[in-house]
Amino acid sequence: MDIYTCIAKRRDTRHFTNEPVPEEILNKAIMAAHHGPSVGLTEPWRFVRVKSEEKREQIKNLFTKASKEAEKSVIEPKTKEKYKSLKLEAILDAPIGLAIFCDHGVLDDFTIGTIGNANTLEWSCACAIQNMWLSLTAEGFGAGWVSIMDYEAFADILEIPKNWKPLGYFCIGKPATDYDGEPMLQNENWKKRSKKPLIIEV
Amino acid sequence: MDIYTCIAKRRDTRHFTNEPVPEEILNKAIMAAHHGPSVGLTEPWRFVRVKSEEKREQIKNLFTKASKEAEKSVIEPKTKEKYKSLKLEAILDAPIGLAIFCDHGVLDDFTIGTIGNANTLEWSCACAIQNMWLSLTAEGFGAGWVSIMDYEAFADILEIPKNWKPLGYFCIGKPATDYDGEPMLQNENWKKRSKKPLIIEV
Repeated sequence: MDIYTCIAKRRDTRHFTNEPVPEEILNKAIMAAHHGPSVGLTEPWRFVRVKSEEKREQIKNLFTKASKEAEKSVIEPKTKEKYKSLKLEAILDAPIGLAIFCDHGVLDDFTIGTIGNANTLEWSCACAIQNMWLSLTAEGFGAGWVSIMDYEAFADILEIPKNWKPLGYFCIGKPATDYDGEPMLQNENWKKRSKKPLIIEV
Repeated sequence: MDIYTCIAKRRDTRHFTNEPVPEEILNKAIMAAHHGPSVGLTEPWRFVRVKSEEKREQIKNLFTKASKEAEKSVIEPKTKEKYKSLKLEAILDAPIGLAIFCDHGVLDDFTIGTIGNANTLEWSCACAIQNMWLSLTAEGFGAGWVSIMDYEAFADILEIPKNWKPLGYFCIGKPATDYDGEPMLQNENWKKRSKKPLIIEV
């Protein structure tokens, strides 16, 4: 698929069909991620595929708890109702669940490019995630990034090394909708995209 | 260009020709960035094009200072020599300089998806950057991400709003080399890519 078509079609998907995701599609997407840029060639991305139903349920519970907490900060009743109506995850219904981490342990030695800002490692992981997302889109599949949860509790559930910091949980599968070709939050009248990015010159 | 070809060809480029970058190429790349995913549809990315030679020189000085500082932490003499020989930026020679920021001011209202980790905003910006990078690659151009500098001093030079946090300075132009189709740091024998990413199952 052409790069621009792919960029335009990529959606944060929360509605999936039951169709399974072939192993080669997942592997291709993870290899696309692995071809992302990484600061100092650290390749700090780590992938944890969550097959355990028990762990998925624990993750779903984390989401539910955090989302209810978030709800409290919404004052306006109409906005609160709208927020409650939004489907913001597909943890139990997406065929594949993938947790992605940034391994801060790669910083043990001298690492080029990480002195200005230690977040550079996480930015590398985010770039890799975008590659993965584009690959899934090109293959007719999709992903939804779940970030509404207690990140420390999330890491605890997955029993990963201490210096792996989570970027989120990804629900992966065949999209049941393309949200009319726009972001779901716009399609649901939650918020509108801006027509142009803000660019200034100095 | 096909998405996989584009992902494979994208390089962190520090060697550019003098060829100017057409305005429409830069605009297309920034619009590709603007089609990135953003947490809660916040679109927190901000672009500052640095045309001022004076400011470019100030940024170059920041790099030089930070890089010399980094050098001190390299103990092994051969590694130190190697580090000193690497070209890690093209601030004064790339035809376009673009600083990219994350506007944390978008968090003023209730924002979906940002309660678990405030870094989600920056991750959105990194995904946008990857889109920009892929677009430039598809058009036969390239970018190099400079992160070796004092980030606070960098923001000060550009006189941007207080809640804009920099992700880095991007040197954009026509690549003078493709580093034999591998990351420059590998091509320079600094470090090798790993053949496969680390995936575990739970």
